[in-house]
Amino acid sequence: MITLEAVAKTLLEKDNILILTHRSPDGDTIGSGYALCIALQRLGKAVRVECSDTIPQKYAYFTEKAKRVEFDEKFIVSVDVADTQLLGDRLSVYADKIDICIDHHGSNTHYAKDLYVEPGAAATAQIIARLIRLMGVETDRDIANAVFTGLSTDTGCFRYTNVTSETHRTAADMIDCGAESGMINRLMFETKSRARMDIERRTLDTMEFFAGGRCAVVYTTLDMIKSADASDSDMEGISSMTRQIEGVVAGVTLREQENGRFKISVRTTDELDASVICSEFGGGGHKAAAGCVIKGTLDEAKSAITGAVCRAIEENI
Amino acid sequence: MITLEAVAKTLLEKDNILILTHRSPDGDTIGSGYALCIALQRLGKAVRVECSDTIPQKYAYFTEKAKRVEFDEKFIVSVDVADTQLLGDRLSVYADKIDICIDHHGSNTHYAKDLYVEPGAAATAQIIARLIRLMGVETDRDIANAVFTGLSTDTGCFRYTNVTSETHRTAADMIDCGAESGMINRLMFETKSRARMDIERRTLDTMEFFAGGRCAVVYTTLDMIKSADASDSDMEGISSMTRQIEGVVAGVTLREQENGRFKISVRTTDELDASVICSEFGGGGHKAAAGCVIKGTLDEAKSAITGAVCRAIEENI
Repeated sequence: MITLEAVAKTLLEKDNILILTHRSPDGDTIGSGYALCIALQRLGKAVRVECSDTIPQKYAYFTEKAKRVEFDEKFIVSVDVADTQLLGDRLSVYADKIDICIDHHGSNTHYAKDLYVEPGAAATAQIIARLIRLMGVETDRDIANAVFTGLSTDTGCFRYTNVTSETHRTAADMIDCGAESGMINRLMFETKSRARMDIERRTLDTMEFFAGGRCAVVYTTLDMIKSADASDSDMEGISSMTRQIEGVVAGVTLREQENGRFKISVRTTDELDASVICSEFGGGGHKAAAGCVIKGTLDEAKSAITGAVCRAIEENI
Repeated sequence: MITLEAVAKTLLEKDNILILTHRSPDGDTIGSGYALCIALQRLGKAVRVECSDTIPQKYAYFTEKAKRVEFDEKFIVSVDVADTQLLGDRLSVYADKIDICIDHHGSNTHYAKDLYVEPGAAATAQIIARLIRLMGVETDRDIANAVFTGLSTDTGCFRYTNVTSETHRTAADMIDCGAESGMINRLMFETKSRARMDIERRTLDTMEFFAGGRCAVVYTTLDMIKSADASDSDMEGISSMTRQIEGVVAGVTLREQENGRFKISVRTTDELDASVICSEFGGGGHKAAAGCVIKGTLDEAKSAITGAVCRAIEENI
């Protein structure tokens, strides 16, 4: 571990800097990468951001503000990348060459020559905002938009429990520096594809309750996904719908796979351990969110997982 | 208009203070009322909050922190009440006796002897936080929870365009003073009643698209509301579901009324003026959100409003 001051000092000395983001990029890795890239370009340095996957077009309002430059990299920084596996195929060639990693994941595997990790930060972008100040670069609107995007996307728009007063203060600073927070939040949180709306509706239609309303179960079959023309990204967050319902302590989502199996997600409130329930079927995860795979028909998979959840409710609550 | 400093000075001089909130109370009127009440009680004053309607139990984490006291009121303050009509039946007796009104609605009708209104504030609670500081009362956890609730509920958890850097800074200050932001956001934003989930599902099932996907229409009949056992509060925000869909510039929600009429909500993006469309049917509202009432069967009402919306789309976009 080095200090953020040391990171700032080193970056000020280097040039031809390559910034690596994680695969399946989200708003925090892209926002952090581009905020840092734009700040370093403002200092006249040659810098670019790379990602193994295509960066979604919806982030264009800040990604297009960085100059596209080609150069032979002399210094490599990774942002929001907890493990080299998360670099993805195309960037795996850099796995053992990363000079500095800046991250907020407590699970960071310390793969870089130097590491700055702050598990208490809601987003890596929260750290990047401080780093840019330490480097003495003025936070302009483009940098502010990138940082704000990282903050809001990694916190469910300031809703999750990872939000601290520093998160809100950083958001306030970014707005004062010109971040278009209203536009960003609308783009990130208020727009659903028709396919997403359709698969959500079809999935909600399957909802059943067990254990006196304390367990809610929904499923999505391959036919439903095909009819709705839904992609993987349309399915994001579908499994959190069940736990939102008043009185529900365990929400179960079954998603049919190609090979006669069902991928199961279990979401629980504080009273119940989802990972214990999923471990009965060879799965695992966190206390509040875990998963497993069950082979069989829909009815078989549903009665197996529902039985396990109802037993856990009877035993624990 | 008086200054907030003058409001603080006056309140410090008064005792036996009655604080009035608006009918159908939301998190901002209740959070503002109780934050101010608790702060004034800390100064040893006799203060209580009144509302024409029952204050929902979900706000108990701060409403129960105020002492319940009876006294003959000598000074009357209203918070977040734009017009005396909004006091509701039970409190209408105070309509012409209000000494100070503290509000953030630009539409405030200036009914109180003294008014402090700040239309740029995202929530009245944002003003109350400053007022409490001006009175020299320390913001403890109970006050912070009440203020934070007002801020987060009136901004859709910091998502709407009314959020400014001061909103985020006030939220940060409240967290530093002990506000349980994670618990509050979960309680306010992640919990849906089964009836709400059910009516949402039934309403989504009715969705139709017009004008090449640019107009989305849903409806809710009395039968659907009865089958879902949904109350008025379960219906909140139902009409904003349509506008979230990618490519939709106008979302229309029809809600059947008892008397063979349909209450229509039209939500639009920047390109279209909802109030102009609704004025064709004798209704009105804002540019992005307006309403009207149409008499007739479901099919008649639907084709009338859909026709008007599609014409507006053809003419304007």
